Amino acid sequence: MQTPFDHARLSLNQITTNRWSLAEALEGCLRAELPAIGIWRHKIADVGLKESRRLVRASGLHVSSVCRGGMFPAATAEERAARIEDNRRAIDEAAELEADTLVLVCGPTPDRDIRGARRMVEDAIAALVPYARERKVRMAIEPLHPMYAAERSCITSLEEANVLADKFDPDVVGIVVDVYHVWWDAMLEREVARARGRIRGFHACDWLVPTPDMLMSRGMMGDGCIDIHRILTLVEAAGYAGFIEVEILNQAIWDQPGDEVLQRMKERYLSCVLKPGPPNS
Amino acid sequence: MQTPFDHARLSLNQITTNRWSLAEALEGCLRAELPAIGIWRHKIADVGLKESRRLVRASGLHVSSVCRGGMFPAATAEERAARIEDNRRAIDEAAELEADTLVLVCGPTPDRDIRGARRMVEDAIAALVPYARERKVRMAIEPLHPMYAAERSCITSLEEANVLADKFDPDVVGIVVDVYHVWWDAMLEREVARARGRIRGFHACDWLVPTPDMLMSRGMMGDGCIDIHRILTLVEAAGYAGFIEVEILNQAIWDQPGDEVLQRMKERYLSCVLKPGPPNS
Repeated sequence: MQTPFDHARLSLNQITTNRWSLAEALEGCLRAELPAIGIWRHKIADVGLKESRRLVRASGLHVSSVCRGGMFPAATAEERAARIEDNRRAIDEAAELEADTLVLVCGPTPDRDIRGARRMVEDAIAALVPYARERKVRMAIEPLHPMYAAERSCITSLEEANVLADKFDPDVVGIVVDVYHVWWDAMLEREVARARGRIRGFHACDWLVPTPDMLMSRGMMGDGCIDIHRILTLVEAAGYAGFIEVEILNQAIWDQPGDEVLQRMKERYLSCVLKPGPPNS
Repeated sequence: MQTPFDHARLSLNQITTNRWSLAEALEGCLRAELPAIGIWRHKIADVGLKESRRLVRASGLHVSSVCRGGMFPAATAEERAARIEDNRRAIDEAAELEADTLVLVCGPTPDRDIRGARRMVEDAIAALVPYARERKVRMAIEPLHPMYAAERSCITSLEEANVLADKFDPDVVGIVVDVYHVWWDAMLEREVARARGRIRGFHACDWLVPTPDMLMSRGMMGDGCIDIHRILTLVEAAGYAGFIEVEILNQAIWDQPGDEVLQRMKERYLSCVLKPGPPNS
């Protein structure tokens, strides 16, 4: 029989139940006896930060992350400044909700100069560090899968994220490891070890085979080809003991009743995240 | 005015004109005054190796590559042995056509154990080296984009390909650099330099934004976001002076008349491969 203790580290990233409002997601987590939630900024915006804070406090749930800051590269200095300013608002939100971390999806290259885009990311993070430190908010760079380099993030590998994060105070700038984005990497073991002391989040889902869509094909843990348990083992060996967020972008899952999704998520967390999972072939 | 000399290093990878048979592709290259072609095994199979050899010799064209060997990982030892045997036939074909290289697309992981799949790749290449050496065929590992890890190749980065190739004689096992597969990599400069003395091919196309399809969305050079010229510059700085193959998988391009595709390819080769290309934003 499962107890709440079995899921003491499990967090619902609320994009997994995208049809739910913030209030509905909090209620769903309470019904499922989950201890934590990852909150998206557009859901905060729907009800306002003050009401979001009230709802979160009333629920008693821990906020494992706010998703997402970032999107730094832009063609003009004005636009880049506007994006840094928007990230200050994201830091405010993470501070108000006492989130463990503000996840940074750093943004794609606006032209053919991906190296230039990467410098813009570094400059923007540098500009945000004092503000984040004052508000005691930890930002965390999430390297995204290389297939998103042109549309979501020019930071595409754990090695690259480590090189970037190394330039900053690890108390302010960390790393998020999402199995979907890094599972393919032959240097995963080396780079997870290198991220020791900086890992601020762990995201779980699965890579479906075949993959019909680049954005919306993330699967429930156990439905794909990622050895999630192994990556968790690496992350824990590097000192990470925080929440395990389930973040799934998948229309078929979004179309299912949220309570059912949370039940399956809890089962698969036990069978395919905390353990190696059954054979998949 | 363009002369054949302008395109002295340009090669048509025949998948770019997939509706053409081998004979048609050779004739198309001659009409376009291209010096070389990359040939696919299923096109060889359509007419047989002997006839393929006759056609190639009659054309006078150089064969820059045979595509493709590989697909090594499999669930059973019998199946892995069968794939190694099939790769011996690929080596025979590359030898008969006097190709510069046999491209290896190494194959996906058959289950959740991607590290196990990588060991199968290494074992298979080791098994093939003596046969390739005897026939004076150079094999070349093509790291594929990480989005293909579960369906086409578990060798997903240039660093990984370098680590693997380093285990073998560089006269027999080299590397192919395809801009589509590696452009996102922040460590590209380091890894291309490391591949010095092993680079056996350079493939060009472009990454379209947005990317509607994972397999069939490769674009004509200049239509996407890759700084192809920069990657060519890196490869040349690492000593590569061989052919530049244009390899495009895109239904819209396949549906165009082959002669028109070759003319556009020649223009873009001059404007977007040999030069940095116009702004794309």
